[in-house]
Parts: sequence; C-alpha cells; structure tokens
Amino acid sequence: MGPLPTASPIGLHRVLSPPGVLPQAARRLDASPGLWPGETRLRVERLNLDAASYRQLHGKHHGDGAAVRGEVLEIIRTRGKMHNPVTGSGGMLVGVVEEGPAFPAGTRVATLVSLTLTPLVITSTTWDGLSEQVPCDGHAILFERSVAAELPDDLPVPLALAVMDVCGAPALTERVVQKYRDMEMASGQAGCAVADFRDVEPAQAERAVRRYRDPVVAVLGAAGKSGSLSLAAARRAGGRTIGVVVNDREAATVEGLADEVLVADARDAVALSDLRADVTVVCVDVPGCEHAAILATRDGGTVVFFSMATSFSAAALGAEGLGADVTMLIGNGYAPGHAELALRLLREEPGVRAAFEERLR
Amino acid sequence: MGPLPTASPIGLHRVLSPPGVLPQAARRLDASPGLWPGETRLRVERLNLDAASYRQLHGKHHGDGAAVRGEVLEIIRTRGKMHNPVTGSGGMLVGVVEEGPAFPAGTRVATLVSLTLTPLVITSTTWDGLSEQVPCDGHAILFERSVAAELPDDLPVPLALAVMDVCGAPALTERVVQKYRDMEMASGQAGCAVADFRDVEPAQAERAVRRYRDPVVAVLGAAGKSGSLSLAAARRAGGRTIGVVVNDREAATVEGLADEVLVADARDAVALSDLRADVTVVCVDVPGCEHAAILATRDGGTVVFFSMATSFSAAALGAEGLGADVTMLIGNGYAPGHAELALRLLREEPGVRAAFEERLR
Repeated sequence: MGPLPTASPIGLHRVLSPPGVLPQAARRLDASPGLWPGETRLRVERLNLDAASYRQLHGKHHGDGAAVRGEVLEIIRTRGKMHNPVTGSGGMLVGVVEEGPAFPAGTRVATLVSLTLTPLVITSTTWDGLSEQVPCDGHAILFERSVAAELPDDLPVPLALAVMDVCGAPALTERVVQKYRDMEMASGQAGCAVADFRDVEPAQAERAVRRYRDPVVAVLGAAGKSGSLSLAAARRAGGRTIGVVVNDREAATVEGLADEVLVADARDAVALSDLRADVTVVCVDVPGCEHAAILATRDGGTVVFFSMATSFSAAALGAEGLGADVTMLIGNGYAPGHAELALRLLREEPGVRAAFEERLR
Repeated sequence: MGPLPTASPIGLHRVLSPPGVLPQAARRLDASPGLWPGETRLRVERLNLDAASYRQLHGKHHGDGAAVRGEVLEIIRTRGKMHNPVTGSGGMLVGVVEEGPAFPAGTRVATLVSLTLTPLVITSTTWDGLSEQVPCDGHAILFERSVAAELPDDLPVPLALAVMDVCGAPALTERVVQKYRDMEMASGQAGCAVADFRDVEPAQAERAVRRYRDPVVAVLGAAGKSGSLSLAAARRAGGRTIGVVVNDREAATVEGLADEVLVADARDAVALSDLRADVTVVCVDVPGCEHAAILATRDGGTVVFFSMATSFSAAALGAEGLGADVTMLIGNGYAPGHAELALRLLREEPGVRAAFEERLR
C-alpha cells in the first residue's frame, strides 16, 4: 500500500501506480475487498459501460461479443477498475451494500462516480458482449467522498441506471439555459435601456434586442440518453429547443420533446452553421463534432460538451480557427441534485422515457 | 479539388482528406500557392511551435535537434500544415503579405489562427530543432475568415509572435474574473440582502458573504507565457492572484506579478487542495493537471483550461469523481481584441515582459 498511513476520502490509499496521483489518473488500483476507514463495499450486480467506450470496443472487435467481453474483463483484472485506455472513460455500476457507512447493508445503490476511479473485481458474468449493460457478480469499493444514490422502487434497474449515468447533462444544461433566461429577464426589467440604443453601435443594439427572445438551444444527438434528458431540461428552463438527430427513426423519437427537429450529421459543420443557437449541447458519442457545434452557436453563445468523444484541442483550436467568440464548457458529471432532476424528467416526460426504452431494448 | 465549385471563407476547398471536414480536422490540406477568391498568401519568415507540441517532439527524440527538425518538416510535407498528430496542436507563424485582400502587400503579419488549419509549405530552414522558434522560408495561405494581426513596430518579432500565440488566455481570464467581480458588486449594491441571512442555511449565507471578497485567482504555470499574461489580466480585473510555479527560479520570475506565490507541482492534487480559488487558470504544458486544478477550486468556482495537454475526459470524469461542483471552460484561443490586450499587458507590465524574455532567451 505504500507509505500512506491513513485512508483518504478520495481514495489516494488505493492507488498502486503511478504513486501520488488520484484514482482516476491511476494505471492500477488496489481492488481488494478489505475496507479502509470510511469506505463502503458493494456486491456488484451490473455495470453500465460508457457509450463511447463500448462503441470503441465494439468497433475494434468488429462486433465480436466474446472478444469485447474478453477485453473488458482483462482491463478490469489488470487495472483494478473499468477504465478504457483508448477513450479514457468508464461508466457506472449498480450493487447492494455489503458493509460500510454510506448506506444501510442491503440497500441497492447506483454509483454516480465513474468506473474509471472505482476499485472493482468481477468474479463471473453472463454478459454476451453485445450491449453496454453487463450483468455480473463481484465487488466494488466506494470511497468516503464517492457519490452514490439509492435506486428508486418505481423504475426497472437498467432504466434507473441508464438515467443516473448521464444525470450530469440535464443538470448543467438547465443551469446554462437558465443563465441566458436570467440575462433576458434582467434586460426586460431594465426596459428603459432600449432608449439608449440610438447611441450605441448597431451590432451592440442587435445583441441587446436579441436578449428579449427565448434562448435557442440546439441539442446534437438529441435522441440519445443524455440528449433526450438535456432537451427536456432545456425546454423546462425556458429554451426554444432544436433536436439534431441523425435519421428519421431518431426524429420520430424526439418528435414531442423538441420544438423543432433537424435531421443532419452532427459532424457536418456546414449543415449546422445556420442554427445560430444561444446554447449548443453536444451529446453525440462519436468523435469530430467540435467544429460543427461551434459553428452552430452564435457569437456570445455557449457550447456544452458532454460527449466523452470530445477532443479538447479540436474544440480549443477550432474556435480559434473559426474566429468564434463562444464559451465552451466541459460537461461536469456532477452537480448537486443531478440524479433527482434526471429521474423526475424521466418520470414526467413520456418522450424521455421513450428515448431511453428505445436504447435499452 | 473535389466537387466544391467556389472558395469557402473557412477554407473547406483546401481540404484533401477526409472529405467534408474543416481544415483543422483534416489529415491533409492542399497548400499550393495559387489563390482562391478571398485568400491571402504570405511569405513565411518564422513558425512559433505550440509549447506542448514542441515538448512532445523534443521528448520523443531525446533532445536530438536534427531529429526534431526532420519530423516537423515531414509533418508539414505530408499534411500540408504543421499539425502534431500526437498533441493535436500546431502554433502560429509570421510572414509578409505577398498577395491577397487581407492586408496591403508587404505588411508583416502574425497569424492568430492555429497552424493546424493553415496551408503551409516550407522550402528551407536554418532551424537547429532546439527551440520552439523556427526561422524558415516558404509560403502559407490565409482564408477569408482567418484572423491575423499586423506586427507592432515597437517590439522584436519573436517577442510579439510569442505574445500573440497565447493572447486568448489573458482575454478569457479577464472576462471570467470580471464576472466574479460583477457578482460581488451586485451583492454589494443589494446590501439589504444581508438582513435576510437569518432565514437561510448557514452554507448559503457563507456563500453570499464570500462574494464581498476579491475573487481569488490561482494560475498554474504562472511563469510561462500564457501564465504570466493571465496573472496580469486577472489582477487588473480585480482578482487576488496566486501564482503557482514549479521551482524557486520561476518563483523569482513571477514575484512582482502575483499577490502570492506558491511553489508546487501543478499535478499534485493534494498540495493544491487548500487554495479554494474562485477561478483557477491552467497554463501548464504538461499532462495530468486536471484533478489538481479541480481540487484547487472552491464549489461554485471556475476552472479555465488553456493547456493543450488537457484531457477532456480526465477533466469531466475527475470533477464527477471528486463530487466537485465547478464550471470547467475550454480555453478559446479567440476573443475580440485579444491581441491588443495581450500586447498592452506586455508593454505595461515589466513582470510579463521579463517572463517572456526568460522563455525566449
């Protein structure tokens, strides 16, 4: 275990290599079942692999389920966690509390921290390697600060798990759209400011006038899990929503959820450049959407990247290369109350539930 | 040239492969010297390689300058642009306008768009491969929307080039710090709100009280080019600045620029977790700083990632894994007026100029 004498609330004591990094950055974690102070051990029932990670493995092995299963088990065995070395992503899991302070023993919970930092051992699995959902037996460790949530009684486990996996997306979308709403309302209250427009540049005046409109929110990959939740959250926060989907089947899925539906390839910068959205939310789990998302957004707008397939440098250099004055956010998987918000959207929005059930079929 | 009949303002007509992507995403560009409508051709005098790109090449070739030079020339020859395939980054260049509408012929300009999207041919160079500055002869193409700036008369070319290369960093830092200042001032004007604190949760009250302080701004990699400019911009925008540097030599460089100096490894999450900064600016050109930056930032704060060594998934999953409610921004290399702001900071802040001259020596 190295020289650390006490348990760390963020799991530093479980890092085997390289020394001194956090568990998510580690090549290898100690996944042994004995508990350090503050830790909680779960009996694992099911993993839900990150979509980008599963897609990469599925592609690499040309859809050979046995080969995908073999690689996933090998990653977990050698790293002590499910951390895809190519995509850098993991997923989450559901299990029953065996021992520890986080929940009473016997509580069925889902982890809301990534598998990339969760010590994990799999002892057996019936998984065929052909979907993101991995039924299995084994154990996992929660650190003192690891976020987890009790599974609700009224939803099937795979459905609740899939919702919680992406619950950071609607929470941040709501916050960003709300910010644009607040800007509008502030402008609205200060109505007399309009009189001053005669003294300002036309471009400035146009910008101020634009604020009186509902913010336009484009969601790329709107028929997916994080996409459908983000659409619903954006509309509830007062946005006029545009769902961008890749084909007519997906268009039917988001029909009732979005105010407008656009069928286009989310990597097609030319096709999206007319949207001029105030907020663009990227939920497409394929690489190469950065430039299209930037071009879809008006100057002064915000792009929120949730896809784990996002390239930092493509986004940063893309905006620079296009001379685009947009704010670009890295989608944070955590926000207070995120699981509750996402579950509420699923229960109350039939379109969200339909999108999830489509994916889980 | 494929089926595109007309020139695109963002250079789509120069993409050779794969078809339909933007120039920055292309594997290969057409760098031939003939001009399409709207384009401008420069005679190239000097490249300034991105720091992360140069560091990667220098490390790969164990400091062998001839090998570094060979690989850079090979990248440019095969891709039609200087686009490091490992780091995904490029740099910028300086040249004299030969022909085209952007500037009068003979104007000496620096490109403010990345080399990763700039068609480029190098015909000869005297570069030894041992620094980021590449004196050379050749030509480059500006698209209609490519941003470039005339070089100032009062500064040596390598210095002005180095400043313009990172001028997006101080512009965005100023904007973010200003936002936190505005929040404070809004709280200050609504002074009577304090009376309501008896009815709110202690945590909420503390958050509101915190707003009356100057925002704390931590800059990781404060002695570097983007770091020293960001420090100066943060202080001018009303921040109380902490410069985080890796050793005592760098500490001496930022002495007069930062309100406080901390000597620490920017990857050391444990060492930085006490800073509780409102805004953390990451300018360190080595991988693995994401978690430390997140832990250095208070809940409700903002992390701005400028380093091209930033991993999107490490940041997104790191914040989730740490249960950290922070806003994370991808540093946009473009903002209106960015070059002018950076040059003004260099001229007016002796500490910034000293940091740049240290790097260029």
